[in-house]
Order: sequence, then structure tokens, then C-alpha cells
Amino acid sequence: MKSDLPTATLLVSCPDQKGLVAKIANFIYSNDGNIIHADQHTDFNTGLFLTRVEWQLDGFVLSREEIAPAFAQFSACFGAKWQLFFSDRKPRISIWVSKQEHCLLDLLWRSRSGEFAVDVPLIISNHPDLKYIADQFGIDYCHIPITKDNKSQQEAQQLEILQKYQIDLVVLAKYMQVITPNFINQFGEIINIHHSFLPAFVGANAYQKAYQRGVKIIGATAHYVTDDLDAGPIIEQDIINISHRDDVKDLICKGKDLEKLVLARAVKLHLQNRILVYGNRTVVFK
Amino acid sequence: MKSDLPTATLLVSCPDQKGLVAKIANFIYSNDGNIIHADQHTDFNTGLFLTRVEWQLDGFVLSREEIAPAFAQFSACFGAKWQLFFSDRKPRISIWVSKQEHCLLDLLWRSRSGEFAVDVPLIISNHPDLKYIADQFGIDYCHIPITKDNKSQQEAQQLEILQKYQIDLVVLAKYMQVITPNFINQFGEIINIHHSFLPAFVGANAYQKAYQRGVKIIGATAHYVTDDLDAGPIIEQDIINISHRDDVKDLICKGKDLEKLVLARAVKLHLQNRILVYGNRTVVFK
Amino acid sequence: MKSDLPTATLLVSCPDQKGLVAKIANFIYSNDGNIIHADQHTDFNTGLFLTRVEWQLDGFVLSREEIAPAFAQFSACFGAKWQLFFSDRKPRISIWVSKQEHCLLDLLWRSRSGEFAVDVPLIISNHPDLKYIADQFGIDYCHIPITKDNKSQQEAQQLEILQKYQIDLVVLAKYMQVITPNFINQFGEIINIHHSFLPAFVGANAYQKAYQRGVKIIGATAHYVTDDLDAGPIIEQDIINISHRDDVKDLICKGKDLEKLVLARAVKLHLQNRILVYGNRTVVFK
Amino acid sequence: MKSDLPTATLLVSCPDQKGLVAKIANFIYSNDGNIIHADQHTDFNTGLFLTRVEWQLDGFVLSREEIAPAFAQFSACFGAKWQLFFSDRKPRISIWVSKQEHCLLDLLWRSRSGEFAVDVPLIISNHPDLKYIADQFGIDYCHIPITKDNKSQQEAQQLEILQKYQIDLVVLAKYMQVITPNFINQFGEIINIHHSFLPAFVGANAYQKAYQRGVKIIGATAHYVTDDLDAGPIIEQDIINISHRDDVKDLICKGKDLEKLVLARAVKLHLQNRILVYGNRTVVFK
Repeated sequence: MKSDLPTATLLVSCPDQKGLVAKIANFIYSNDGNIIHADQHTDFNTGLFLTRVEWQLDGFVLSREEIAPAFAQFSACFGAKWQLFFSDRKPRISIWVSKQEHCLLDLLWRSRSGEFAVDVPLIISNHPDLKYIADQFGIDYCHIPITKDNKSQQEAQQLEILQKYQIDLVVLAKYMQVITPNFINQFGEIINIHHSFLPAFVGANAYQKAYQRGVKIIGATAHYVTDDLDAGPIIEQDIINISHRDDVKDLICKGKDLEKLVLARAVKLHLQNRILVYGNRTVVFK
Repeated sequence: MKSDLPTATLLVSCPDQKGLVAKIANFIYSNDGNIIHADQHTDFNTGLFLTRVEWQLDGFVLSREEIAPAFAQFSACFGAKWQLFFSDRKPRISIWVSKQEHCLLDLLWRSRSGEFAVDVPLIISNHPDLKYIADQFGIDYCHIPITKDNKSQQEAQQLEILQKYQIDLVVLAKYMQVITPNFINQFGEIINIHHSFLPAFVGANAYQKAYQRGVKIIGATAHYVTDDLDAGPIIEQDIINISHRDDVKDLICKGKDLEKLVLARAVKLHLQNRILVYGNRTVVFK
Repeated sequence: MKSDLPTATLLVSCPDQKGLVAKIANFIYSNDGNIIHADQHTDFNTGLFLTRVEWQLDGFVLSREEIAPAFAQFSACFGAKWQLFFSDRKPRISIWVSKQEHCLLDLLWRSRSGEFAVDVPLIISNHPDLKYIADQFGIDYCHIPITKDNKSQQEAQQLEILQKYQIDLVVLAKYMQVITPNFINQFGEIINIHHSFLPAFVGANAYQKAYQRGVKIIGATAHYVTDDLDAGPIIEQDIINISHRDDVKDLICKGKDLEKLVLARAVKLHLQNRILVYGNRTVVFK
Repeated sequence: MKSDLPTATLLVSCPDQKGLVAKIANFIYSNDGNIIHADQHTDFNTGLFLTRVEWQLDGFVLSREEIAPAFAQFSACFGAKWQLFFSDRKPRISIWVSKQEHCLLDLLWRSRSGEFAVDVPLIISNHPDLKYIADQFGIDYCHIPITKDNKSQQEAQQLEILQKYQIDLVVLAKYMQVITPNFINQFGEIINIHHSFLPAFVGANAYQKAYQRGVKIIGATAHYVTDDLDAGPIIEQDIINISHRDDVKDLICKGKDLEKLVLARAVKLHLQNRILVYGNRTVVFK
């Protein structure tokens, strides 16, 4: 079985050149690290090399504090952008909802059951309806109503709260408000679940639109949020078959199962530091 | 096992009212027909009743020639639109291609193996490249080049040939030309395969667009052709997963398998008279 | 949209003969019923005709009490076995669990959200662990420990409690005990979820066995329980892809999502009276 | 786009130890090789490290002839078993069939279209039926009838022919004869397609058995052939949904599409040297 010993993970992207696999592996090995996962991808269109390396901290010569500066110095010569994570440092996420509870409940269950290594200290909603779930799970519920007029000041409040709770990632779990570029500019780690196979049926009422078009499959898409609505880097997508017997109500019901699964898979991949974003694309090291 | 005795099939649509299932079943039963498949659907949004009934001709009191007039008279009172088919009358289809052979070969194999009950006397192409396949299968190959300037006269020629060969259905098996409304107006039974999960990526270069968008699934859609490009009634759709490792060439390669399967399923459903079109939607009686 | 008016549903099976579709439709129509769903299947191997008919009670000439005796008399001549259901009479189900909560929680959520039209008054378990969930949902939790020695008397107690709570259906939602033929003989409506694509990996430790065999897909199967372990009529099956990276722990984790979905779909189909069992097979009228 | 320059690929397995990723990458890098794919897997149950490394030959300091001896010497100290492949050396495969043509035709099409980098000089069959396909594609067709009595001498003949044609891989594309351990002992590179999701429905008549069991999905499995019937290391599996409407004939028809796809995927993965077998398992480096 896989060990549960703490690990460090590096996500690295840089211009492609000969020897990168060897160099990065050597950085770990020369410090007595035992690599348990290494994967990489070269995007030949952009000339980018992207890699994920995970190694056990046990026996590693560098202390946690020393790793980042050492890798910064080491990787400067090949122009790398990189992130460093430790497996025993649980990310803190805030789940945002409106009135629908299925994705929220699903994420909370997975967290409680230990499937996700995560802390969920904060739920934010533009409606008060789902507070009872927060209470059940002992999580703070912050009700911040949004209108056309108050959005910018409410977003300021949201940002303040995220900072106060030291949130690493916001998960929009059926949060029915558009996030403004201003917000995204200040807090960029946001995953959204959209109820269609993007790029089809962008925006509101995706199931109604799918029904109108007479499609034979419906889908769901988890993606990072960017300034362009439903156009950010896609993490995960899936579909199910429907038939002429399914009206809009049936699509919504069937879609809920998809939304839960696709969002959960995306969040899990993010929490395991398996996703590298470049341009408007993701590399998902599964 | 299912019997191979010849059957008749009625596809009927009419305004919904009480008793339609009973009335239509009685029409068959009162003439000593043995129903082997009956399915129906009510579209509550449009108030339409749609049904498919298939019965064995063996022992049926009415002769083949008498059925249509009898049903016309019988169904006049509930305003039905209907079509009648006999299972031992093989439809005649014309397959249209450009330069890619995979869908053509797949359809011809299925025809030759007996999976499709169909005659394929005619292949039409705007290129000469695939004539060797027509020769292999002993099918006439009609090369009709299309340019911007000659399209209307070439379509006139195509219509003439379809009539000469008594074609019931045209299958666009990677035919890379838009069919004009004028043509469709004169010959409406056309199935197309599009290389995306519609309505995403309409028009040309769907795989290139899919790659650019960074999707994690690609799809294919079989639909009837209407005046609006890639917007006709959808018959069948399917998808496969892709990853960051797949470049455009990989998408094209993986997509071929999808295109073949989705088109074959749609053509088979059509040949079995299982599809009822209403508005821009299909009911597929599986 | 579909109406929410109450309906009656007949599930009928009988030896195949000419005219059955017409006769049964006439029974409804002659009593002024509006059929909203009718589907049938003929099994040519066994010579059985199987059908599901659903019609609106509004305007139906027969009262609810009169329908069963009338249909009994009507159908006697063609030797039908049949069941009658009313859509506004909620079935009462008892969910049985051991220590794993995922299927239980999923079923309870779907019930609470209105996806299932059902009452869940009773949870039975051979362990006390999941009582807290019963408490959260306000459901009685009956802890009945099972050992080799006490099984027959404990089953007697279980049967008594089912009777007391007037339970229509038992759902084994990861209940890790074999039900004896004696129990099944007295209470036959039992749905189980098995953690493999049956008939592969019967019995305990299915994920361990799947890992040992090196399969590339894992599955789940919902079936009715019969005397033969994991060999009853199958209602629903689904699978997901796995890879060499997945160890047994990963299979268990991925399998949970499958188990939840497959069991939920099966229970929903049962609650909608869409399943007819004959021999060791099911007809599922979707 | 990916380059089409020739590459070398190493498949390596050895006892796990620290530094293997670095060491192997260094072997390539120190000889001026540009790695374009490197993936590895550690099986913690068996303590095995398994890896695939592919690099461009252009600019590599070692000549093709020098690579194997150099790597042999280099890897001796960590007890590696390994194989070396060159991308521009096309494997030679022999396809074996009985009477069904669908898998054969599918493989030949993919070869001809360039999807597979392969030579197919030889088809072997225990029946004469499919010779016409061999003729169409200009491939030698060797008819070797098998009876209970002549199997051992016929296998001797088969082995001789494989040697004469310098065959690297045998693909059993619906070859309905069991290969004996004696044969496998002398020629071990054999891929088979089995018409079920193994380990369910081992041996003959898998669709008949699937129908009898009343399953709701059918599958296909591609695996390497070992002494135990249908029990070798699994490469690829897939399934499709079926319903009560599908009789055995329908399962066979639907299954053909699965068999073609699953076998083609497995052969392609093998031809790309992406599969490492250890014990009764495969690692598939996708």
C-alpha cells in the first residue's frame, strides 16, 4: 500500500530544454529524497515543459524551510515558475453556495469521510437557506446578500473574510453570482462547477437551453474562474445520456449527480496538487 | 429469438387526446395483426402524441396496398401525420464523402455484414479519391466537384442522380460541403455526422477548436440536416475522454472512432424506422 | 411539463397472445382513463408478454377500490399476473446498513430533496455506528447485532419490526450480512448493492479481488436479493475506469461513488414501479 | 505538434530504491538525449519500480548499436529487467482469425490508414473463409485447420511460419482455438480479445452466458495470453449498456463494436511500447 508519510510536491513549468527531467530528479536525489511520483508534459506548440514531482520528506536532507530557497536558486537558470506543497499542510477552502445544497453536501461528506485532506472553516452564501447545513457540520456560515448595487462593496467584504479565515481556495458549489474581474484579480484560486459540457450552453439556464436544442447528452464542467464567464481553464468534464422522455426537470435532477461528481473530482485533483494551469489550459497529472 | 417474419411499422404523430393508444392498437388488432413493438411518447410542452407500432404482416387481414388507405381514413378524425414502412422493403441510401474514408468503410462493412438492411447503390463525392472503395464494393461512384461558382448547377445534377437511383436517404459521411436550403427543400432525408458534441464547435475545424478551448472530452453528433448549419434535429451523440497529452492529431484520430460509431447508430435507428422528428427534436424509440 | 396529478400503474405479465396491447389499453380507455405511459416487451424465448401502463386517475370512471377487482376479472381470461400501484401512495422503505455510511446518506438526501417519493421510517443495522445519521434525519434506528449463533432469532425480530413499521421494501445499503432463504421467503422485496460488475467477484472483498485480477474497470450492481448469493435479478450496473495507479484503497474510494449512483438509480426505478421481474431477469421500463 | 523524429524507448522494471528516476534520466541526458516522455510507477505491494522513457535519437551520442550494451552495463547494479525499442523499426504482426471478420478488417484498416506503425505480412486461420480479405490487402493467408488430433503438429507448423515471417506479435482477432502452453512457451507475445468484461464469462459463449445472467452491461477485454484460459494480464476493457430488449443476437452485434475498439486500443498501446507486464498485471503508460 502507498505510504502515508508526509511528502513534498513541486509543480514546475519552464521553457523546454534538454535535461530538465534529469536535473529536477537530481535536485531531489542529491538531497536524499525518495521520489514517489514524477510526471511531465511537453507542450510542443508553446515550447513549455511542465512537471510534477512528489517525494517523501522522511530522510530528505533539506528542512521544509530550506527547500523553497534551494529550489529557487537551483531553478533560476532554466527560468522556472514553480509551486511547492507539503502533503500534511491541509489547504483551507471556502465553499460558496446559493440555494441548492447538493454540491455543498457532497463536498462536506467527502471532507468528513477523509476522502479530501482539507479544512472547510467557512461557507459563504448570498442566501440564508443553507445555514442549517453549516450548523450540522459546525462550519461558519456567512450570509452576504448580493444585489446589482452592492456587489462591489460585498465583494470587498468577501475578500476580507477570506483573508481573515486564511482561505487558500474558493469552491463555487452552485453559487449563482458572477464573480467580478476585480475580485478575481485579488483572489485567483477559484473553482466553479458549470452545468453543461462547455463551451456549449454558457451562462444561466443551461438545462433549459439543452432541452431546447434537443441534445441526447448533458454534461458538467469544473473549471478555474477567470474574467471571461465560463471560459476559464477546464479541469474535468463528464456527461450522461438523456432521451426524449427527459424534460427540463429530469435534466436538472440527472444533472445534479453529474455536477457533484465532476466538482468533487476537480477539487480532489486540486487538493492533491495535480493541476498545472498554463494559458487557458490545464495539465492534470493523474 | 425474435422472428424474421416481415412486419409493418407505423410512425404517427398527432395532437394528444384520450384513447389514442387504444385506438391505434385496435386498428391493428381488429385486422388480426400481432403487435411486436409499440411505444409512444407525449410531449406535454407541445401537446403532441407520438407513437411507433410494429406488427407482423403474416395473418394480417389487410393487404399491403390496403393498409395505407385504411389507416388514412381511420386516423383522419384525430388529425394524425403518419408514415408506413415494410421491413422487407430495403431502403436505398446514397453515401456522400469527400476525402476521408473511415465512415464510408464502416457503413459499407455494416451493410455487407447484414447489420443494416439496406441497399447502397450510389456513392457521391466532390473528390475522386475514394473511388477505389466503391470499386471494391461494386457500387457506383459519382464524382461531382463543387466550387463556389458551380454549386447550384452541381446540386441540380445531384438531385437528378438521386432520383434516377431512387434514393430514400442521403448519409453525409464526412462530406465537407454545406448543402443549400434549395437542395434540402427538394430532398429532405439527410443524415450528417458532425465531429463535436453539438451545439459546441459548429462548423469547420471542430477538433482544432476543441484543442484551443482545452476541453477534457470530445464528441460526435449525428443529426438530420436542415437549413441551419449543424443545427438540425439530433439523433445520437457520444463522447470520449481526452487529456493534455492529446494534440489536434490525436483528437482527429480518436474522433474517427466516435464518428463511425455515432453515425452508424443513427443510420441504423433511421433504417429501423425508430425516429420521429417534430419541431427541431427527435423521438428515438429504442 | 409532466403533470403531477395522481396516476395508477399496472405491471402485467402473461403468456403472449394477439391483441394484448389493444385489450389492456381498452380497459383503461373504456373507463375514461388517460394513458400517460405504456410500454411492453415480449420475451420470445419464454413466450411472455410484459407491460407497464400508467394513466391519470382524474376522470377515471372506476374508484381506486374498484380497479383491482375489475382488472382481476378482466385479465383472468389471459392468465395475467399483475400488480397495481397509485402514485400518491408513498412506499415505506427500510434501509439496512453496517458501518459504511455513503449509500445511506445518499439515499436519505435524495428522499429529503424530493427526488424519491418515499417514506423512510426505519434504519436497521448490525452495528450501532450510524445511529447519529438516523438521529439527524429523525428516523428510528434499530440496532440488531448478528452473530453466527443468533442469526435466525435476530431475523425473526427483523421481520417483526418490518411488519410493525409496515415496510414495503428493504434496501441493503452496504449491509454486510447474508440474508437467509428463510427471511427472503417471508419478505421478498429486497434490493442490494454489490460492489462489482456481477457475475464477477461474487461475495466479500470484491475490490481486493478486482485488484488481484488486475482489471482495468471496476463496477457496481444493484439487484433483487434471492436465495443465491449475489445471483438475483439485476436492475442496474455501471463501471468506471481504473489504472495501475489505483491500489485497493483507491478502488474502494472510487467504488463508493459508483455504489451510491447505481443503488440510487435502482431504488428510484423500483419506486416508480418500472421494474418487472420474471425468472432471474428484469424488464426495466425506462 | 509532436515531432516525427525517430525515438528510442526503454521499458524498465527493477526493485525499488532511491534515485532510480534520476539515474535513468541521467543516463539519457549524459549522452545528450532529449527525453520526450518519462513515466514511472512504483508497486508498493511488490516493491517494484517500473518506468518508460522515450527520447529522441537525433543528437544522441550513442549509436543504436551501442545503446543496449551501455544500458545493460549501466543498469546491472540495480538489477533491472529492460527492453529497448526504436520507433522507426516497425513491428511485424500476424493476425489470427477463424470465421468472423470484424476485428481483422478493423486492424487492417488502421494499419493501412497509418494509425498503426506496423507491418502485417501474415494472417493465419483455422478456416479458409477470410482469405478474400487477405487478398484484398495483399497479405499472405495461411490456412491451418485444427482438430483435436492434429493440434500439436499444427502448432509446430504455426511456430515455424511465425519464425519464417519474423513475427514479433500475434494478435488473436476472434481466433476460436485455445493456444497450448507448449506454444506459448515458445512464442509468448500474444494479444487476445475476449468478448466479456473478464473475469466474468470466461471461455466460449460469453454473450449467451451474459444473456442468461440478465446483465445490464456487456464488455470486452484485451489481454496477453498465458497458460490459463482468459486469465492473462489485462491491457484494456470497456463496456456498453444493454437492456431487456437485447437478445443474444443483439448482444453479439453490439459486442462487435466493443471488441474492435478494445482490441485496437490494446494493439496500439503495445505497438507504442507503453505496456509493462509484471506478475499477472500490466502497467499501461498512457
